[in-house]
Amino acid sequence: MQRIAVRRRVTRIDLDSGARRVEDVLAAEEPLEIRVGGRSLAVTMRTPGHDVELATGFLVSEGVVTAAEHVAAARYCAGTTDEGLNTYNVLDVTLRDVPAPDPSLERSFYTTSSCGLCGKASIDAVRTHSHWTVDDDGLVLRADLLATFPDRLREHQEVFATTGGLHAAALFDGATGELLVLREDVGRHNAVDKVVGWALTGGRLPLRGTVLMVSGRASFELTQKALMAGIPVLAAVSAPSSLAADLAHEAGITLVGFLRGSSMVVYSRPERVALPVHV
Amino acid sequence: MQRIAVRRRVTRIDLDSGARRVEDVLAAEEPLEIRVGGRSLAVTMRTPGHDVELATGFLVSEGVVTAAEHVAAARYCAGTTDEGLNTYNVLDVTLRDVPAPDPSLERSFYTTSSCGLCGKASIDAVRTHSHWTVDDDGLVLRADLLATFPDRLREHQEVFATTGGLHAAALFDGATGELLVLREDVGRHNAVDKVVGWALTGGRLPLRGTVLMVSGRASFELTQKALMAGIPVLAAVSAPSSLAADLAHEAGITLVGFLRGSSMVVYSRPERVALPVHV
Repeated sequence: MQRIAVRRRVTRIDLDSGARRVEDVLAAEEPLEIRVGGRSLAVTMRTPGHDVELATGFLVSEGVVTAAEHVAAARYCAGTTDEGLNTYNVLDVTLRDVPAPDPSLERSFYTTSSCGLCGKASIDAVRTHSHWTVDDDGLVLRADLLATFPDRLREHQEVFATTGGLHAAALFDGATGELLVLREDVGRHNAVDKVVGWALTGGRLPLRGTVLMVSGRASFELTQKALMAGIPVLAAVSAPSSLAADLAHEAGITLVGFLRGSSMVVYSRPERVALPVHV
Repeated sequence: MQRIAVRRRVTRIDLDSGARRVEDVLAAEEPLEIRVGGRSLAVTMRTPGHDVELATGFLVSEGVVTAAEHVAAARYCAGTTDEGLNTYNVLDVTLRDVPAPDPSLERSFYTTSSCGLCGKASIDAVRTHSHWTVDDDGLVLRADLLATFPDRLREHQEVFATTGGLHAAALFDGATGELLVLREDVGRHNAVDKVVGWALTGGRLPLRGTVLMVSGRASFELTQKALMAGIPVLAAVSAPSSLAADLAHEAGITLVGFLRGSSMVVYSRPERVALPVHV
């Protein structure tokens, strides 16, 4: 499936040199319907590729599965285009030994509080759903090692280089700095789900001692996904939101933002970040 | 409600100068539950402020309302925090003269195709739902005027300036270049819904002759929102996805990406963009 990037005819305009028709490469976006046991659970707009990881990582994020054994099978349904070709856009996951999710799960997840929603209610809901704790993760991360992650993320973003249109999420070993996996997607949350699905399949959950690095900003949703996968450190190139910082604080996640060049801002659990000793 | 930005204690680290505790300002993120006639429709993580515009704009995007008269009332429910304060995070909209939306609307919107999902099925679904056509919009937009929009978007992004963490959406008059409205949010889709809700309230739908300018990228979802509001031109600072370009092409929207400095890329309907004549 060569659908991660697609070619289109476009018009490039420069105020000085004028307009010309050229061929350009765009980041592919297609809907993926995630089904569990034949029942529709969610539709996400995603970049095709690593769809099984996306679906299973999504199920980790939603608290449905926590181990590879919980996924008995994942296969594309027979959705077809007008030309009779399989769209590869409907994926059905068969569970084993875990209950099927409530189909209204996405919505009920946030609406458990009977008194209306506040940030605290959302945070409490996420913490209740999480199978792991991360506040006891003993990782100590060298700040100079962490500072190398954005460049290494960018270096490995193959599709971004051609389209300029994809987010990325990467998992690093916090002790050695080894890049464990990197995934790209038009949606940052999808890129993270793909990383988590990769980890689930490999029997790596919870992801103790690791760092999740994302392009762009850190939202509540991404922080939630880190917690649900047992990841103790979330690092972003740009700013976090207030609720991301609040959840990270409550859950014991080290949240790093504005990770650029030799500087960064740590919003929670800064004691996990160690400065190099200048001798 | 001073909740657009909130203060937090953070640790700034610089590899050369070390670590120090400082106070920082973060973009606020809180859940908003949108109810229609007392029934929960959706929960979105948003930056508080302009919530009624967000809720009504969302209802425009989903094809539920098309005119200000369709919204009889919008009021906050009595959700309270542990301290008994209203959270202002649950908003109930009362409709008039239009049917209440299907509570599974968000999902059904994409899943109307019985043959599984392809990009074309999604595009057809959006086009069917839209109350307006934009392909007949006669706007001719000067490229040199369009090139001024990103700087003007940035100039007016008040909260971004302090937090570095907010997306923005702005509506410009395509003929005069006048900035009609600008909204900021942690979610780009929310910023667009707020702009559309503003237009709905002012009786301005469909937004013929206007340009919607967004920070960041242009997704299928944002293109869909432009169409549902009758906006003929969508311009983004960064790249669009393939499905955004495909929907724009099908619906007759002019989609502009990489709008930076004196250059831009036009992905569909380039004939609406006019180059200045050098004399």
